[in-house]
Amino acid sequence: MNRLTGLILLSGSSPSTTNIHYLSGFTAPDAFLYLKTASGGWLCVSPMEKARARNQSTAGTQVFTPQELGLSGKKAWNYVEQIKALMEKAGVKRLQVPIDFPAGFFQTLEKQGIKISIDRNPTCPERKVKDAAEISKLRKSQQAAVAAMKSGIALIGSSKIGKNNLLYIGREKLTSEKVRQLIHKTLIDHDCAGVETIVAGGDQGTDPHERGSGPLFAGQSIILDIFPRSEKTGYWGDITRTVCRGPAHPELKKLYIAVKAAQLAALKMVKPGICADEIHRNCCEIFEKRGFQTLEKEGRHVGFIHGTGHGVGLDIHELPRVGKSGEVLEAGHVITIEPGLYYPGLGGVRIEDTVVVTEDGFRFLASCPKKFELL
Amino acid sequence: MNRLTGLILLSGSSPSTTNIHYLSGFTAPDAFLYLKTASGGWLCVSPMEKARARNQSTAGTQVFTPQELGLSGKKAWNYVEQIKALMEKAGVKRLQVPIDFPAGFFQTLEKQGIKISIDRNPTCPERKVKDAAEISKLRKSQQAAVAAMKSGIALIGSSKIGKNNLLYIGREKLTSEKVRQLIHKTLIDHDCAGVETIVAGGDQGTDPHERGSGPLFAGQSIILDIFPRSEKTGYWGDITRTVCRGPAHPELKKLYIAVKAAQLAALKMVKPGICADEIHRNCCEIFEKRGFQTLEKEGRHVGFIHGTGHGVGLDIHELPRVGKSGEVLEAGHVITIEPGLYYPGLGGVRIEDTVVVTEDGFRFLASCPKKFELL
Repeated sequence: MNRLTGLILLSGSSPSTTNIHYLSGFTAPDAFLYLKTASGGWLCVSPMEKARARNQSTAGTQVFTPQELGLSGKKAWNYVEQIKALMEKAGVKRLQVPIDFPAGFFQTLEKQGIKISIDRNPTCPERKVKDAAEISKLRKSQQAAVAAMKSGIALIGSSKIGKNNLLYIGREKLTSEKVRQLIHKTLIDHDCAGVETIVAGGDQGTDPHERGSGPLFAGQSIILDIFPRSEKTGYWGDITRTVCRGPAHPELKKLYIAVKAAQLAALKMVKPGICADEIHRNCCEIFEKRGFQTLEKEGRHVGFIHGTGHGVGLDIHELPRVGKSGEVLEAGHVITIEPGLYYPGLGGVRIEDTVVVTEDGFRFLASCPKKFELL
Repeated sequence: MNRLTGLILLSGSSPSTTNIHYLSGFTAPDAFLYLKTASGGWLCVSPMEKARARNQSTAGTQVFTPQELGLSGKKAWNYVEQIKALMEKAGVKRLQVPIDFPAGFFQTLEKQGIKISIDRNPTCPERKVKDAAEISKLRKSQQAAVAAMKSGIALIGSSKIGKNNLLYIGREKLTSEKVRQLIHKTLIDHDCAGVETIVAGGDQGTDPHERGSGPLFAGQSIILDIFPRSEKTGYWGDITRTVCRGPAHPELKKLYIAVKAAQLAALKMVKPGICADEIHRNCCEIFEKRGFQTLEKEGRHVGFIHGTGHGVGLDIHELPRVGKSGEVLEAGHVITIEPGLYYPGLGGVRIEDTVVVTEDGFRFLASCPKKFELL
């Protein structure tokens, strides 16, 4: 980017919101603009946000209100006018925007004769490699996730098995909702927020994005997938465990053992220089060898139906992907390793840890036991 | 829209994500496409989401995976290819997109010769008027907000006033963080999630978007702004109260009384047919008459520095706005009324309720006492 070109980001879409947070240190609930130029960053925020933006933004970021850019009346609330005023203030003549920039404003700027083009590269590829401060923030979120996981598993483990294999705490049926509530409260005690946490038993667990609801049963696999966001730093954690209250059917146990083996094998492959899709392919092979096919059955995809992992940072899903279109891992990448198997009628199993790629391998961000049967 | 034109939405940006949720009944953490045509809705989701999408989507919505649309390999993961395949399946020849559709995909579609234009009108203006089922969902979220508010205020009210006016619970200093934790836990008990809840005392409260941190003090105004999202329905609640532990300075009391008067006057004006900016102007006048000016002072905006309210639904901020660019209210609109005054050195006060516009006035979604001094 030369000094006459600026990259403009508008918060409110993904991943521009977190890119602005990453670049400027500032974020806000309402949409606002950020201009990145060769000489630094330029925020345009409402008068209400000005003081906070000045306090929170990093060195090299200048904060303006629309009024300070010379806009008044209705123009002050118009993003296109704000962009043009920011360009003038920053002395740039050409604009780039990321793919997720709103088409409506893109078209208006173009029609008004602004030289604007789309930069199809990731806006902040440097986000993939985390520095020590970021790793420390991610570790705290992961520690919160582990504490919440332990509280959830302890609750399931303490349940009594009643009629029809229903689980009970005292006289009340234990439900996905109750386990999720406890998990969320534990996250709050660790300054994190949990949303969409998965506690899915039996066939519910065979849909990896099903959050789970209703009573839990003995003998079924229960997937707990917890991904808290720190209320302080905005960084995420991500962990999954699968448990079974009471003894599991031998076939279900085999499923668990296969996933655990694939996850361990995958973790062992994590190091700088490896292509992430090799790790994914290895998981697939381990499953195939053990007879766990991935295919379409009665209109549903069963088996290993998602990628092996993803980057974690200011977004819960960010680069690098650990899947078919994987990239070469580098030291400082923070990724999940989370193979899983899903067979309606039998159950779902997923085991996930978040790790940082080190010079010679990987390190868990936080450790958490893996135990399937809670007897 | 004629039968050869379709409107395409991609989740991941605001407000398209919630528009898809509103139109199709389905939402998911990862981005996916929705095509709206004269004959119905067409979802394109990953194989992993298919079963859930079919279960959750409303009548008239058809669900496809990229593979079912004839895409394979890398093409299956490409939104532009998915859009073209959806168009073919739905038999539409022209596309419209909302303002927030990603510019990158817009440009690619245009370059590939697709007839595509930007619809600059709100995608779902009908979202403004809530039906009985929606109002019931909003009421539940608002009831959760009220319960959480009561728990937070009770905690502040139960605190002891110690040295330097610090507030204590037992031997521990009462902080914004502790009040927020209790509020969030109460929300969890009501199946809601609270994020970015504001508990801001003294000068922190004079920045309306400052969440608040650190010890709370007697004699200062403490703003509590709670906006929970139901984990079940996705609908939001929104409430603000301002309290003061111990007696307040007479000037601060005047501030509170002015805001309370403005809020009551604003509520009384709420009815179908009124232009929302009249309500806002009336708040401004009440403040001016009582000597509470809105102006810039030492580089900061002070006084009544935000709008009077906003719509609430599947988004926490949605239409109609209750501010300068306000619209005419209609029965079924659900809006907040939340005037506030902010003076660094004195404090901030905001009082907010969420109400539904009825045929002859308004109804609170849930009621919550207003009491400033907790003596």
